[in-house]
Amino acid sequence: MADARPRRLAALTDALIPAQLDALLVTGLANIRYLTGFSGSSALVLVTPRETLLITDFRYETQVAGEVGSLARIVVEPVSLWTALWQQLQSASGVRVVGFESPHLMHRDFQRLLEAGSRWQWRPTSDLVERQRERKDADEVSRIKRSADVATRALARTLPAVHPGLSELQVAGLLEHALRDEGSEGFAFPSIVAAGARAALPHAQPTGHRVAAGDFLLMDFGAVVDGYCSDVTRTVVVGRASAEQREVYEVVRGANEAASAAVCAGMTGRDADAVARSYIERRGLGDLFGHSLGHGIGLEVHEAPRLARTNEQELPPGAVVTIEPGVYRAGWGGVRIEDDVWLSADGPRILTELPRDLLELV
Amino acid sequence: MADARPRRLAALTDALIPAQLDALLVTGLANIRYLTGFSGSSALVLVTPRETLLITDFRYETQVAGEVGSLARIVVEPVSLWTALWQQLQSASGVRVVGFESPHLMHRDFQRLLEAGSRWQWRPTSDLVERQRERKDADEVSRIKRSADVATRALARTLPAVHPGLSELQVAGLLEHALRDEGSEGFAFPSIVAAGARAALPHAQPTGHRVAAGDFLLMDFGAVVDGYCSDVTRTVVVGRASAEQREVYEVVRGANEAASAAVCAGMTGRDADAVARSYIERRGLGDLFGHSLGHGIGLEVHEAPRLARTNEQELPPGAVVTIEPGVYRAGWGGVRIEDDVWLSADGPRILTELPRDLLELV
Repeated sequence: MADARPRRLAALTDALIPAQLDALLVTGLANIRYLTGFSGSSALVLVTPRETLLITDFRYETQVAGEVGSLARIVVEPVSLWTALWQQLQSASGVRVVGFESPHLMHRDFQRLLEAGSRWQWRPTSDLVERQRERKDADEVSRIKRSADVATRALARTLPAVHPGLSELQVAGLLEHALRDEGSEGFAFPSIVAAGARAALPHAQPTGHRVAAGDFLLMDFGAVVDGYCSDVTRTVVVGRASAEQREVYEVVRGANEAASAAVCAGMTGRDADAVARSYIERRGLGDLFGHSLGHGIGLEVHEAPRLARTNEQELPPGAVVTIEPGVYRAGWGGVRIEDDVWLSADGPRILTELPRDLLELV
Repeated sequence: MADARPRRLAALTDALIPAQLDALLVTGLANIRYLTGFSGSSALVLVTPRETLLITDFRYETQVAGEVGSLARIVVEPVSLWTALWQQLQSASGVRVVGFESPHLMHRDFQRLLEAGSRWQWRPTSDLVERQRERKDADEVSRIKRSADVATRALARTLPAVHPGLSELQVAGLLEHALRDEGSEGFAFPSIVAAGARAALPHAQPTGHRVAAGDFLLMDFGAVVDGYCSDVTRTVVVGRASAEQREVYEVVRGANEAASAAVCAGMTGRDADAVARSYIERRGLGDLFGHSLGHGIGLEVHEAPRLARTNEQELPPGAVVTIEPGVYRAGWGGVRIEDDVWLSADGPRILTELPRDLLELV
């Protein structure tokens, strides 16, 4: 597999010219990983047309050498990454106007730029790296696919062990254990496990609440493989489904399938959202679908593009997005069915290969 | 148990007067949880002497009512939290100069203050809430203790199942499963599991690397109970320890025990660090203890105070801190032993009740 990093860095330095920047200070950790391969939690990266500089601390000395190699000049700083940055900038000839990442720099650090960094001119930028990251290359899609495979296999291992009387926490434990056994290097986000009426809370963290017979059980979770996230939701009935449960479920399933089949590059985020939303509205449940349809996934579990009423932009080719319609009725429960879909040149390709039929655990 | 939140809000509004602020915009999520009880991931809080306002989005409508109750005026905003903030500020009489949290506001959002919020004066602040959070009250200490108990019980359940041939990922799966079964509502941070030479990397994420007989196995992990974190590290030998392993282990154990017994309120962070560091230096391994001794824990796994050479401040009474000396030899392995210690009025109290003797899993 060709190393994509030199191409990504070259595309970024090309983007500096129209932005009239001599360099870009990269502080977003996912952007740093995308450009350099470094996966640690503490780094500053300065990209100039001449070289890439990566400053990290001694905890990562061994790791950074292995991950970054000769792609960047590496500085390991014992005290403060910022002190090292000023020193390095002073010896960087021709660097006067430097962009920084406005969505990834705390005001406290912005003040450092104005104070200790006052001899340079600082310009806020947005999404210079994120715009590249939206369009996944073949290697990235294959990592997300493997991450999706880990997640779907973990769920398949977990479901046979679920029965009434287990707590949401116990179900989370089974699921996360299976994710690790299948090779997940971490959790894409805190797992959501919600039973019964709690399934109506779109962001429920698992609790000691026990699954009862006949409950909906909603599980929203994700794996991480080679840095790339997956994000899957399935809702099952622990026992036999009631007619009302089945009816709501089928509406959500239909919305998921309609949107998964229709979503493609070139469609606006708003129009993608509308495919699922209008499906649910026509069945009279539009008021109960309170969130947007989905979001991009990659090195981060929430990244561009958004599939939402407020996004008039076209979805870029190569994006991988979630399709996650839901219907939530307070005090009763909720259903969400979420898949990860790659917007390939040949149309949408579902990466999460899992049945979407209503599953009754009996 | 008395509700601590009104006292915390009152202490904060008292602190606004010397800072010459009419209000404080709180954006740090742990600070929001500390002041209001809200545990969601999306909120803006405005604290004035007259009232506390909490703005969140529809996903948290049910949750926020249950967690915050009548303590704050709650606004659920469908589109943008910031739009709601401007509307609310316009009707807040007497609010002209507003502080914001410089370490918890992205530059992008700072620009919103200067643009859409230009009719108010904005002043950066630091640590107004964090300073309160350093001194834990009895209820907080009891939550951290329960979190520590969950972590220590999870480790006790995990160790008998560890044997050569398991991968680091599989060990992480066992440990995290046990954490959930013991009631952990989440993971305080991504678990570190590192075997053999990988134990020399202070921040190793678990991989498919398999534990071999005679390896050091370092496990650094934490529970979350009622929002409060614990943070524990134990290093065991999977098999019989060599003389060299035992020698290094005993140095780290001695440093941990010396520091855990000596650390107390009123000592500077530097002096606390020096207790362990000088112990290790006297045994000739000072160069191999590359990080600082510890950090505060609470609602966040890393918070004030720091036990580090660079912290000349006195440790406050009531703080709960980690004591985590380590010795790392690249290519060979490493040992870290970490406990959580409460700086009580009667001196240090270790909350992580786990043996520190070298454990050989045979």
